[in-house]
Amino acid sequence: MAEGFFDRLRGRIERVGSVVSVGLDPDLDRLPPDAADHDLPRWAFNRRVIDATHEHAAAFKPNAAFYEGEQGWRALRETAAYAAGKDVPVLLDAKRGDVGVSARQYAEVLDWVDAITVSPYLGRDALSPFLSRAEAGVFVLCRTSNAGGADLQELALASGEPLYERVAALADVWNEHGNVGLVVGATAPEELERVRETVDVPFLVPGVGAQGGDLEAAVEYGLADGIGLINSSRGIVYAGDEAPDVTDTDGYARAAGEAAKRLRRRVAEHR
Amino acid sequence: MAEGFFDRLRGRIERVGSVVSVGLDPDLDRLPPDAADHDLPRWAFNRRVIDATHEHAAAFKPNAAFYEGEQGWRALRETAAYAAGKDVPVLLDAKRGDVGVSARQYAEVLDWVDAITVSPYLGRDALSPFLSRAEAGVFVLCRTSNAGGADLQELALASGEPLYERVAALADVWNEHGNVGLVVGATAPEELERVRETVDVPFLVPGVGAQGGDLEAAVEYGLADGIGLINSSRGIVYAGDEAPDVTDTDGYARAAGEAAKRLRRRVAEHR
Repeated sequence: MAEGFFDRLRGRIERVGSVVSVGLDPDLDRLPPDAADHDLPRWAFNRRVIDATHEHAAAFKPNAAFYEGEQGWRALRETAAYAAGKDVPVLLDAKRGDVGVSARQYAEVLDWVDAITVSPYLGRDALSPFLSRAEAGVFVLCRTSNAGGADLQELALASGEPLYERVAALADVWNEHGNVGLVVGATAPEELERVRETVDVPFLVPGVGAQGGDLEAAVEYGLADGIGLINSSRGIVYAGDEAPDVTDTDGYARAAGEAAKRLRRRVAEHR
Repeated sequence: MAEGFFDRLRGRIERVGSVVSVGLDPDLDRLPPDAADHDLPRWAFNRRVIDATHEHAAAFKPNAAFYEGEQGWRALRETAAYAAGKDVPVLLDAKRGDVGVSARQYAEVLDWVDAITVSPYLGRDALSPFLSRAEAGVFVLCRTSNAGGADLQELALASGEPLYERVAALADVWNEHGNVGLVVGATAPEELERVRETVDVPFLVPGVGAQGGDLEAAVEYGLADGIGLINSSRGIVYAGDEAPDVTDTDGYARAAGEAAKRLRRRVAEHR
Protein backbone atom coordinates (compact mmCIF):
# COMPACT_ATOMS: atom_id res chain seq x y z
CA MET A 1 0.00 0.00 0.00
CA ALA A 2 1.16 3.50 -0.80
CA GLU A 3 2.44 5.58 2.10
CA GLY A 4 -0.18 7.94 3.49
CA PHE A 5 -0.06 11.67 2.81
CA PHE A 6 0.77 12.67 6.36
CA ASP A 7 3.63 10.18 6.48
CA ARG A 8 4.99 11.62 3.24
CA LEU A 9 4.49 15.14 4.60
CA ARG A 10 6.29 14.18 7.82
CA GLY A 11 9.22 12.95 5.73
CA ARG A 12 9.30 16.19 3.79
CA ILE A 13 9.04 18.36 6.91
CA GLU A 14 11.92 16.49 8.54
CA ARG A 15 14.11 16.65 5.42
CA VAL A 16 13.78 20.41 4.96
CA GLY A 17 13.09 21.45 8.54
CA SER A 18 10.09 23.49 7.44
CA VAL A 19 6.29 23.43 7.71
CA VAL A 20 5.89 26.31 5.27
CA SER A 21 3.35 25.85 2.48
CA VAL A 22 3.97 28.11 -0.50
CA GLY A 23 0.68 29.12 -2.12
CA LEU A 24 0.97 29.27 -5.90
CA ASP A 25 -1.68 31.79 -6.92
CA PRO A 26 -0.53 33.23 -10.25
CA ASP A 27 -2.89 36.11 -10.92
CA LEU A 28 -2.63 36.97 -14.64
CA ASP A 29 -3.14 40.65 -13.79
CA ARG A 30 -0.13 40.69 -11.47
CA LEU A 31 2.49 38.72 -13.39
CA PRO A 32 5.61 40.49 -14.61
CA PRO A 33 5.60 41.16 -18.38
CA ASP A 34 8.11 38.45 -19.31
CA ALA A 35 5.90 35.77 -17.69
CA ALA A 36 2.68 37.33 -18.99
CA ASP A 37 4.03 37.09 -22.54
CA HIS A 38 4.76 33.36 -22.22
CA ASP A 39 2.30 31.00 -23.92
CA LEU A 40 1.60 29.43 -20.50
CA PRO A 41 2.16 32.45 -18.25
CA ARG A 42 1.12 30.81 -14.98
CA TRP A 43 3.51 27.92 -15.57
CA ALA A 44 6.37 30.22 -16.60
CA PHE A 45 5.90 32.12 -13.34
CA ASN A 46 5.40 29.08 -11.09
CA ARG A 47 8.42 27.22 -12.41
CA ARG A 48 10.75 30.03 -11.35
CA VAL A 49 8.98 30.44 -8.01
CA ILE A 50 9.32 26.69 -7.36
CA ASP A 51 13.02 26.80 -8.28
CA ALA A 52 13.55 29.63 -5.81
CA THR A 53 11.39 28.40 -2.92
CA HIS A 54 11.40 24.58 -2.90
CA GLU A 55 14.26 24.27 -0.41
CA HIS A 56 12.09 26.08 2.14
CA ALA A 57 8.77 24.43 1.26
CA ALA A 58 7.05 21.54 3.03
CA ALA A 59 4.36 21.74 0.33
CA PHE A 60 3.16 23.78 -2.62
CA LYS A 61 -0.47 24.85 -2.55
CA PRO A 62 -1.89 25.97 -5.91
CA ASN A 63 -5.39 27.43 -5.56
CA ALA A 64 -7.65 25.95 -8.25
CA ALA A 65 -9.37 29.32 -8.76
CA PHE A 66 -6.28 30.58 -10.59
CA TYR A 67 -6.19 27.65 -13.00
CA GLU A 68 -9.65 27.57 -14.55
CA GLY A 69 -9.81 27.19 -18.31
CA GLU A 70 -7.77 25.17 -20.80
CA GLN A 71 -4.50 27.10 -20.31
CA GLY A 72 -4.94 27.15 -16.57
CA TRP A 73 -5.28 23.37 -16.37
CA ARG A 74 -2.20 22.87 -18.52
CA ALA A 75 -0.26 25.21 -16.24
CA LEU A 76 -1.57 23.38 -13.17
CA ARG A 77 -0.50 19.96 -14.48
CA GLU A 78 2.97 21.26 -15.40
CA THR A 79 3.25 22.88 -11.98
CA ALA A 80 2.22 19.72 -10.11
CA ALA A 81 4.63 17.56 -12.12
CA TYR A 82 7.49 19.99 -11.59
CA ALA A 83 6.87 20.19 -7.84
CA ALA A 84 6.77 16.38 -7.68
CA GLY A 85 10.13 16.35 -9.47
CA LYS A 86 11.48 18.52 -6.64
CA ASP A 87 10.06 16.01 -4.15
CA VAL A 88 7.57 18.52 -2.72
CA PRO A 89 3.97 17.38 -2.04
CA VAL A 90 1.23 19.30 -3.85
CA LEU A 91 -1.96 20.32 -2.05
CA LEU A 92 -4.65 21.56 -4.43
CA ASP A 93 -6.71 24.23 -2.69
CA ALA A 94 -9.97 23.50 -4.49
CA LYS A 95 -12.59 23.68 -1.70
CA ARG A 96 -14.62 21.08 -3.57
CA GLY A 97 -17.85 19.56 -2.37
CA ASP A 98 -20.55 17.97 -4.47
CA VAL A 99 -22.82 14.93 -4.44
CA GLY A 100 -22.51 11.39 -5.74
CA VAL A 101 -21.03 11.00 -9.20
CA SER A 102 -19.94 14.65 -9.28
CA ALA A 103 -17.86 14.18 -6.13
CA ARG A 104 -16.21 11.12 -7.69
CA GLN A 105 -15.35 13.21 -10.76
CA TYR A 106 -13.75 15.93 -8.63
CA ALA A 107 -11.77 13.32 -6.68
CA GLU A 108 -10.01 12.14 -9.85
CA VAL A 109 -7.58 15.04 -9.49
CA LEU A 110 -6.06 13.04 -6.63
CA ASP A 111 -4.52 10.82 -9.32
CA TRP A 112 -1.89 13.55 -9.77
CA VAL A 113 -1.91 15.80 -6.72
CA ASP A 114 -1.16 14.65 -3.17
CA ALA A 115 -3.89 16.39 -1.20
CA ILE A 116 -6.92 18.63 -1.61
CA THR A 117 -9.11 21.03 0.38
CA VAL A 118 -12.85 20.24 0.56
CA SER A 119 -15.98 21.96 1.88
CA PRO A 120 -18.05 20.22 4.59
CA TYR A 121 -21.40 21.88 3.78
CA LEU A 122 -22.75 18.88 1.81
CA GLY A 123 -21.81 16.35 4.48
CA ARG A 124 -19.96 13.10 4.64
CA ASP A 125 -21.22 11.32 1.52
CA ALA A 126 -20.09 14.27 -0.62
CA LEU A 127 -16.57 13.82 0.76
CA SER A 128 -16.34 10.04 0.73
CA PRO A 129 -14.69 9.77 -2.73
CA PHE A 130 -11.87 11.90 -1.27
CA LEU A 131 -11.81 10.31 2.20
CA SER A 132 -11.63 6.79 0.75
CA ARG A 133 -8.31 7.59 -0.94
CA ALA A 134 -6.20 6.55 2.02
CA GLU A 135 -2.98 7.72 0.35
CA ALA A 136 -4.26 11.28 -0.24
CA GLY A 137 -4.61 14.17 2.21
CA VAL A 138 -8.06 15.72 2.67
CA PHE A 139 -8.19 19.10 4.41
CA VAL A 140 -11.74 19.99 5.47
CA LEU A 141 -12.62 23.69 5.69
CA CYS A 142 -13.31 24.43 9.35
CA ARG A 143 -12.70 28.09 10.33
CA THR A 144 -11.54 30.08 7.32
CA SER A 145 -9.31 33.16 7.40
CA ASN A 146 -11.70 35.64 5.74
CA ALA A 147 -13.91 38.10 7.64
CA GLY A 148 -17.10 36.46 6.33
CA GLY A 149 -15.91 33.12 7.70
CA ALA A 150 -17.82 34.02 10.87
CA ASP A 151 -21.18 34.30 9.03
CA LEU A 152 -21.86 30.56 9.21
CA GLN A 153 -18.87 29.07 10.96
CA GLU A 154 -19.36 30.97 14.23
CA LEU A 155 -23.09 30.31 14.50
CA ALA A 156 -23.89 28.81 17.90
CA LEU A 157 -25.52 25.41 17.78
CA ALA A 158 -28.28 24.34 20.14
CA SER A 159 -25.76 21.98 21.73
CA GLY A 160 -23.65 25.00 22.71
CA GLU A 161 -20.61 24.89 20.47
CA PRO A 162 -20.07 26.99 17.33
CA LEU A 163 -20.56 25.31 13.95
CA TYR A 164 -16.82 25.22 13.17
CA GLU A 165 -16.19 23.14 16.28
CA ARG A 166 -18.85 20.63 15.24
CA VAL A 167 -17.22 20.46 11.80
CA ALA A 168 -13.91 19.68 13.48
CA ALA A 169 -15.54 16.90 15.50
CA LEU A 170 -17.28 15.50 12.41
CA ALA A 171 -14.04 15.55 10.43
CA ASP A 172 -12.47 13.57 13.25
CA VAL A 173 -15.21 10.93 12.89
CA TRP A 174 -14.74 10.90 9.10
CA ASN A 175 -11.01 10.28 9.57
CA GLU A 176 -11.12 6.50 9.25
CA HIS A 177 -7.99 6.34 7.13
CA GLY A 178 -5.87 8.85 9.05
CA ASN A 179 -5.82 11.14 6.03
CA VAL A 180 -7.95 14.07 7.27
CA GLY A 181 -6.69 17.53 8.18
CA LEU A 182 -8.50 20.80 8.87
CA VAL A 183 -8.25 24.31 7.44
CA VAL A 184 -8.15 26.85 10.29
CA GLY A 185 -7.06 30.41 9.59
CA ALA A 186 -4.35 32.24 11.51
CA THR A 187 -6.59 35.31 11.54
CA ALA A 188 -8.73 33.53 14.16
CA PRO A 189 -6.17 32.54 16.83
CA GLU A 190 -8.75 31.82 19.56
CA GLU A 191 -10.63 29.51 17.24
CA LEU A 192 -7.34 27.83 16.33
CA GLU A 193 -6.82 27.04 20.00
CA ARG A 194 -10.38 25.75 20.45
CA VAL A 195 -10.15 23.49 17.41
CA ARG A 196 -6.81 22.12 18.62
CA GLU A 197 -8.48 21.25 21.93
CA THR A 198 -11.17 19.35 19.98
CA VAL A 199 -9.09 17.29 17.55
CA ASP A 200 -5.61 15.98 17.09
CA VAL A 201 -5.23 16.14 13.28
CA PRO A 202 -2.81 18.35 11.31
CA PHE A 203 -4.05 21.79 10.26
CA LEU A 204 -3.46 23.80 7.15
CA VAL A 205 -3.22 27.35 8.49
CA PRO A 206 -3.63 30.11 5.89
CA GLY A 207 -3.59 33.83 6.56
CA VAL A 208 -0.15 34.41 8.11
CA GLY A 209 1.10 36.49 5.17
CA ALA A 210 -0.86 39.23 3.37
CA GLN A 211 -3.87 38.63 5.64
CA GLY A 212 -1.84 39.47 8.76
CA GLY A 213 -2.72 36.45 10.91
CA ASP A 214 -1.09 35.37 14.15
CA LEU A 215 2.02 33.34 13.32
CA GLU A 216 2.73 32.28 16.89
CA ALA A 217 -0.76 30.83 17.35
CA ALA A 218 -0.53 29.22 13.89
CA VAL A 219 2.59 27.32 14.91
CA GLU A 220 1.49 26.56 18.47
CA TYR A 221 -1.92 25.15 17.54
CA GLY A 222 -1.59 24.25 13.85
CA LEU A 223 0.83 21.37 14.23
CA ALA A 224 -0.12 17.89 15.48
CA ASP A 225 2.97 16.06 16.68
CA GLY A 226 4.98 18.48 14.54
CA ILE A 227 2.91 17.91 11.39
CA GLY A 228 0.89 20.63 9.69
CA LEU A 229 1.24 23.42 7.15
CA ILE A 230 1.57 27.17 7.65
CA ASN A 231 0.68 28.78 4.34
CA SER A 232 1.56 32.06 2.73
CA SER A 233 0.55 32.74 -0.87
CA ARG A 234 0.68 36.40 -1.93
CA GLY A 235 3.17 37.20 0.85
CA ILE A 236 5.65 34.91 -0.91
CA VAL A 237 4.94 34.87 -4.63
CA TYR A 238 4.34 38.63 -4.88
CA ALA A 239 7.06 39.65 -2.43
CA GLY A 240 8.68 41.24 -5.51
CA ASP A 241 5.95 43.89 -5.50
CA GLU A 242 7.71 45.45 -2.52
CA ALA A 243 11.04 45.90 -4.34
CA PRO A 244 10.95 48.83 -6.79
CA ASP A 245 13.73 47.40 -8.98
CA VAL A 246 11.94 44.08 -9.54
CA THR A 247 10.34 43.98 -12.98
CA ASP A 248 10.80 40.44 -14.22
CA THR A 249 10.12 36.86 -13.16
CA ASP A 250 13.72 36.32 -12.06
CA GLY A 251 13.37 39.21 -9.64
CA TYR A 252 10.01 37.96 -8.39
CA ALA A 253 11.45 34.46 -7.93
CA ARG A 254 14.41 35.80 -5.93
CA ALA A 255 12.09 37.86 -3.72
CA ALA A 256 9.82 34.82 -3.29
CA GLY A 257 12.77 32.67 -2.25
CA GLU A 258 13.82 35.24 0.33
CA ALA A 259 10.25 35.58 1.65
CA ALA A 260 9.87 31.79 1.95
CA LYS A 261 13.20 31.53 3.75
CA ARG A 262 12.20 34.36 6.10
CA LEU A 263 8.85 32.76 6.92
CA ARG A 264 10.54 29.40 7.53
CA ARG A 265 12.93 31.09 9.95
CA ARG A 266 10.13 32.95 11.75
CA VAL A 267 8.16 29.71 12.05
CA ALA A 268 11.26 27.95 13.41
CA GLU A 269 11.49 30.55 16.20
CA HIS A 270 8.06 29.42 17.44
CA ARG A 271 8.46 25.63 16.94
CA MET B 1 -28.01 48.00 -17.93
CA ALA B 2 -28.24 44.36 -18.92
CA GLU B 3 -31.45 42.55 -18.04
CA GLY B 4 -31.18 40.51 -14.84
CA PHE B 5 -30.91 36.72 -14.89
CA PHE B 6 -34.33 36.10 -13.40
CA ASP B 7 -35.96 38.43 -15.93
CA ARG B 8 -34.23 36.52 -18.75
CA LEU B 9 -35.24 33.24 -17.13
CA ARG B 10 -38.84 34.45 -16.85
CA GLY B 11 -38.81 35.23 -20.56
CA ARG B 12 -37.48 31.79 -21.38
CA ILE B 13 -39.98 30.03 -19.08
CA GLU B 14 -42.86 31.90 -20.69
CA ARG B 15 -41.64 31.23 -24.25
CA VAL B 16 -41.31 27.47 -23.82
CA GLY B 17 -43.86 26.90 -21.05
CA SER B 18 -41.31 24.95 -19.04
CA VAL B 19 -39.33 25.27 -15.81
CA VAL B 20 -37.28 22.14 -16.56
CA SER B 21 -33.53 22.42 -16.16
CA VAL B 22 -31.61 19.78 -18.11
CA GLY B 23 -28.45 18.77 -16.27
CA LEU B 24 -25.57 18.19 -18.66
CA ASP B 25 -23.35 15.71 -16.80
CA PRO B 26 -21.41 13.83 -19.49
CA ASP B 27 -19.67 11.02 -17.61
CA LEU B 28 -16.88 9.72 -19.86
CA ASP B 29 -17.49 6.20 -18.51
CA ARG B 30 -21.13 6.25 -19.61
CA LEU B 31 -20.97 7.83 -23.07
CA PRO B 32 -21.95 5.72 -26.10
CA PRO B 33 -18.93 4.61 -28.18
CA ASP B 34 -19.47 7.04 -31.06
CA ALA B 35 -19.32 10.01 -28.66
CA ALA B 36 -16.48 8.52 -26.62
CA ASP B 37 -14.38 8.24 -29.80
CA HIS B 38 -14.85 11.93 -30.65
CA ASP B 39 -11.89 14.21 -29.91
CA LEU B 40 -14.15 16.23 -27.57
CA PRO B 41 -16.46 13.46 -26.35
CA ARG B 42 -18.41 15.54 -23.84
CA TRP B 43 -19.15 18.20 -26.43
CA ALA B 44 -20.13 15.62 -29.07
CA PHE B 45 -22.61 14.15 -26.59
CA ASN B 46 -23.94 17.46 -25.24
CA ARG B 47 -24.55 18.95 -28.68
CA ARG B 48 -26.94 16.17 -29.60
CA VAL B 49 -28.62 16.27 -26.20
CA ILE B 50 -29.11 20.04 -26.55
CA ASP B 51 -30.55 19.59 -30.05
CA ALA B 52 -33.03 17.04 -28.71
CA THR B 53 -34.03 18.76 -25.46
CA HIS B 54 -33.80 22.53 -25.91
CA GLU B 55 -37.47 22.97 -26.82
CA HIS B 56 -38.37 21.62 -23.38
CA ALA B 57 -35.62 23.35 -21.41
CA ALA B 58 -35.86 26.54 -19.35
CA ALA B 59 -32.13 26.18 -18.71
CA PHE B 60 -29.18 23.88 -19.19
CA LYS B 61 -27.17 23.04 -16.08
CA PRO B 62 -23.69 21.62 -16.74
CA ASN B 63 -22.00 20.42 -13.54
CA ALA B 64 -18.41 21.70 -13.45
CA ALA B 65 -17.20 18.40 -11.94
CA PHE B 66 -17.63 16.75 -15.34
CA TYR B 67 -15.54 19.37 -17.15
CA GLU B 68 -12.25 19.48 -15.27
CA GLY B 69 -9.08 19.42 -17.35
CA GLU B 70 -8.16 20.97 -20.69
CA GLN B 71 -10.60 18.92 -22.81
CA GLY B 72 -13.35 19.36 -20.27
CA TRP B 73 -13.09 23.14 -20.35
CA ARG B 74 -13.12 23.19 -24.14
CA ALA B 75 -16.25 21.04 -24.10
CA LEU B 76 -17.84 23.31 -21.49
CA ARG B 77 -17.21 26.46 -23.53
CA GLU B 78 -18.57 24.85 -26.69
CA THR B 79 -21.60 23.63 -24.76
CA ALA B 80 -22.31 27.06 -23.23
CA ALA B 81 -21.97 28.82 -26.59
CA TYR B 82 -24.22 26.29 -28.31
CA ALA B 83 -26.91 26.58 -25.62
CA ALA B 84 -26.74 30.38 -25.91
CA GLY B 85 -27.25 29.99 -29.65
CA LYS B 86 -30.46 28.11 -28.87
CA ASP B 87 -31.49 30.98 -26.58
CA VAL B 88 -31.34 28.82 -23.44
CA PRO B 89 -29.71 30.24 -20.27
CA VAL B 90 -26.77 28.28 -18.87
CA LEU B 91 -26.41 27.67 -15.13
CA LEU B 92 -22.98 26.33 -14.17
CA ASP B 93 -23.35 24.02 -11.20
CA ALA B 94 -19.93 24.73 -9.69
CA LYS B 95 -20.67 25.04 -5.94
CA ARG B 96 -17.81 27.52 -5.68
CA GLY B 97 -16.81 29.38 -2.57
CA ASP B 98 -13.41 30.87 -1.79
CA VAL B 99 -11.93 34.01 -0.32
CA GLY B 100 -10.82 37.36 -1.74
CA VAL B 101 -8.89 37.24 -4.97
CA SER B 102 -9.69 33.55 -5.46
CA ALA B 103 -13.42 34.26 -5.38
CA ARG B 104 -12.93 36.99 -7.98
CA GLN B 105 -11.09 34.50 -10.19
CA TYR B 106 -13.92 31.96 -9.93
CA ALA B 107 -16.49 34.66 -10.72
CA GLU B 108 -14.90 35.35 -14.10
CA VAL B 109 -16.77 32.37 -15.52
CA LEU B 110 -19.87 34.60 -15.34
CA ASP B 111 -18.45 36.38 -18.39
CA TRP B 112 -19.79 33.46 -20.45
CA VAL B 113 -22.39 31.60 -18.40
CA ASP B 114 -25.61 33.13 -17.10
CA ALA B 115 -25.72 31.80 -13.55
CA ILE B 116 -23.76 29.71 -11.06
CA THR B 117 -24.23 27.71 -7.87
CA VAL B 118 -22.13 28.73 -4.84
CA SER B 119 -21.48 27.38 -1.34
CA PRO B 120 -22.34 29.56 1.69
CA TYR B 121 -19.81 28.02 4.12
CA LEU B 122 -17.25 30.85 3.72
CA GLY B 123 -19.81 33.59 4.21
CA ARG B 124 -20.82 36.74 2.42
CA ASP B 125 -17.45 38.21 1.43
CA ALA B 126 -16.57 34.96 -0.38
CA LEU B 127 -19.71 35.35 -2.48
CA SER B 128 -19.59 39.08 -3.13
CA PRO B 129 -17.76 38.84 -6.49
CA PHE B 130 -20.71 36.74 -7.68
CA LEU B 131 -23.45 38.72 -5.91
CA SER B 132 -22.17 42.02 -7.30
CA ARG B 133 -22.81 40.83 -10.88
CA ALA B 134 -26.37 42.10 -11.00
CA GLU B 135 -26.98 40.52 -14.42
CA ALA B 136 -25.97 37.01 -13.31
CA GLY B 137 -27.92 34.45 -11.28
CA VAL B 138 -26.35 33.19 -8.03
CA PHE B 139 -27.90 30.05 -6.51
CA VAL B 140 -26.71 29.51 -2.93
CA LEU B 141 -26.61 25.92 -1.64
CA CYS B 142 -29.22 25.66 1.11
CA ARG B 143 -30.58 22.12 1.61
CA THR B 144 -28.96 19.71 -0.83
CA SER B 145 -30.54 16.54 -2.20
CA ASN B 146 -27.94 14.03 -0.94
CA ALA B 147 -28.31 11.96 2.22
CA GLY B 148 -25.28 13.61 3.86
CA GLY B 149 -26.89 17.01 3.29
CA ALA B 150 -28.37 16.61 6.77
CA ASP B 151 -24.94 16.31 8.48
CA LEU B 152 -24.46 20.08 8.67
CA GLN B 153 -27.54 21.60 7.09
CA GLU B 154 -30.02 20.13 9.60
CA LEU B 155 -28.00 21.05 12.69
CA ALA B 156 -30.21 22.98 15.13
CA LEU B 157 -28.93 26.44 15.96
CA ALA B 158 -29.15 27.96 19.43
CA SER B 159 -31.77 30.33 18.01
CA GLY B 160 -33.98 27.32 17.24
CA GLU B 161 -33.97 26.96 13.47
CA PRO B 162 -31.85 24.50 11.49
CA LEU B 163 -28.74 25.79 9.73
CA TYR B 164 -30.28 25.56 6.23
CA GLU B 165 -33.05 27.94 7.27
CA ARG B 166 -30.50 30.45 8.52
CA VAL B 167 -28.66 30.12 5.21
CA ALA B 168 -31.91 30.89 3.41
CA ALA B 169 -32.42 33.99 5.56
CA LEU B 170 -28.82 35.13 5.03
CA ALA B 171 -29.12 34.66 1.26
CA ASP B 172 -32.20 36.84 1.38
CA VAL B 173 -30.14 39.57 3.08
CA TRP B 174 -27.36 39.12 0.50
CA ASN B 175 -29.88 39.57 -2.33
CA GLU B 176 -29.34 43.30 -2.86
CA HIS B 177 -29.44 43.00 -6.64
CA GLY B 178 -32.40 40.61 -6.96
CA ASN B 179 -30.11 37.97 -8.44
CA VAL B 180 -30.04 35.35 -5.66
CA GLY B 181 -31.73 31.95 -5.75
CA LEU B 182 -31.43 28.90 -3.49
CA VAL B 183 -30.64 25.24 -4.11
CA VAL B 184 -33.14 23.07 -2.24
CA GLY B 185 -33.44 19.39 -3.10
CA ALA B 186 -36.71 17.64 -3.97
CA THR B 187 -35.60 14.74 -1.75
CA ALA B 188 -36.36 16.96 1.26
CA PRO B 189 -39.96 18.11 0.62
CA GLU B 190 -40.61 19.28 4.19
CA GLU B 191 -37.49 21.41 4.10
CA LEU B 192 -38.58 22.77 0.71
CA GLU B 193 -41.81 23.95 2.31
CA ARG B 194 -39.99 25.50 5.30
CA VAL B 195 -37.53 27.36 3.09
CA ARG B 196 -40.37 28.65 0.94
CA GLU B 197 -42.04 30.03 4.08
CA THR B 198 -38.77 31.83 4.91
CA VAL B 199 -37.89 33.45 1.60
CA ASP B 200 -39.47 34.47 -1.66
CA VAL B 201 -36.61 33.85 -4.13
CA PRO B 202 -36.58 31.29 -6.98
CA PHE B 203 -35.22 27.83 -6.16
CA LEU B 204 -33.17 25.42 -8.20
CA VAL B 205 -34.63 22.05 -7.20
CA PRO B 206 -32.44 19.04 -8.04
CA GLY B 207 -33.24 15.43 -7.24
CA VAL B 208 -36.56 14.83 -9.05
CA GLY B 209 -35.04 12.33 -11.51
CA ALA B 210 -32.63 9.53 -10.65
CA GLN B 211 -32.65 10.57 -6.98
CA GLY B 212 -36.42 9.99 -6.70
CA GLY B 213 -37.44 13.29 -5.10
CA ASP B 214 -40.96 14.66 -4.68
CA LEU B 215 -41.98 16.38 -7.92
CA GLU B 216 -45.21 17.82 -6.58
CA ALA B 217 -43.43 19.52 -3.66
CA ALA B 218 -40.68 20.69 -6.03
CA VAL B 219 -43.22 22.50 -8.19
CA GLU B 220 -45.40 23.75 -5.33
CA TYR B 221 -42.56 25.23 -3.29
CA GLY B 222 -39.72 25.66 -5.80
CA LEU B 223 -41.26 28.43 -7.87
CA ALA B 224 -41.50 32.07 -6.80
CA ASP B 225 -44.17 33.84 -8.81
CA GLY B 226 -43.77 31.07 -11.41
CA ILE B 227 -39.97 31.38 -11.62
CA GLY B 228 -37.60 28.61 -10.65
CA LEU B 229 -35.92 25.52 -12.06
CA ILE B 230 -36.75 21.84 -11.58
CA ASN B 231 -33.65 19.90 -12.59
CA SER B 232 -33.05 16.40 -13.83
CA SER B 233 -29.59 15.36 -15.00
CA ARG B 234 -29.05 11.60 -15.28
CA GLY B 235 -32.79 10.99 -15.60
CA ILE B 236 -32.70 12.90 -18.89
CA VAL B 237 -29.26 12.54 -20.46
CA TYR B 238 -28.93 8.82 -19.67
CA ALA B 239 -32.58 7.94 -20.34
CA GLY B 240 -31.14 5.89 -23.23
CA ASP B 241 -29.71 3.43 -20.70
CA GLU B 242 -33.25 2.14 -20.21
CA ALA B 243 -33.74 1.27 -23.89
CA PRO B 244 -31.89 -1.93 -24.88
CA ASP B 245 -31.68 -0.94 -28.57
CA VAL B 246 -29.96 2.39 -27.85
CA THR B 247 -26.22 2.17 -28.55
CA ASP B 248 -25.27 5.51 -30.07
CA THR B 249 -25.52 9.22 -29.32
CA ASP B 250 -28.50 9.68 -31.67
CA GLY B 251 -30.40 7.12 -29.63
CA TYR B 252 -29.39 8.73 -26.35
CA ALA B 253 -30.39 12.14 -27.66
CA ARG B 254 -33.81 10.88 -28.75
CA ALA B 255 -34.36 9.25 -25.36
CA ALA B 256 -33.19 12.45 -23.63
CA GLY B 257 -35.63 14.52 -25.69
CA GLU B 258 -38.49 12.22 -24.72
CA ALA B 259 -37.49 12.26 -21.04
CA ALA B 260 -37.27 16.07 -21.01
CA LYS B 261 -40.66 16.33 -22.70
CA ARG B 262 -42.14 13.87 -20.19
CA LEU B 263 -40.75 15.78 -17.21
CA ARG B 264 -42.01 19.06 -18.63
CA ARG B 265 -45.49 17.53 -18.97
CA ARG B 266 -45.42 16.08 -15.44
CA VAL B 267 -44.31 19.44 -14.06
CA ALA B 268 -47.11 21.17 -15.99
CA GLU B 269 -49.67 18.92 -14.26
CA HIS B 270 -48.59 20.40 -10.92
CA ARG B 271 -48.20 24.05 -11.95
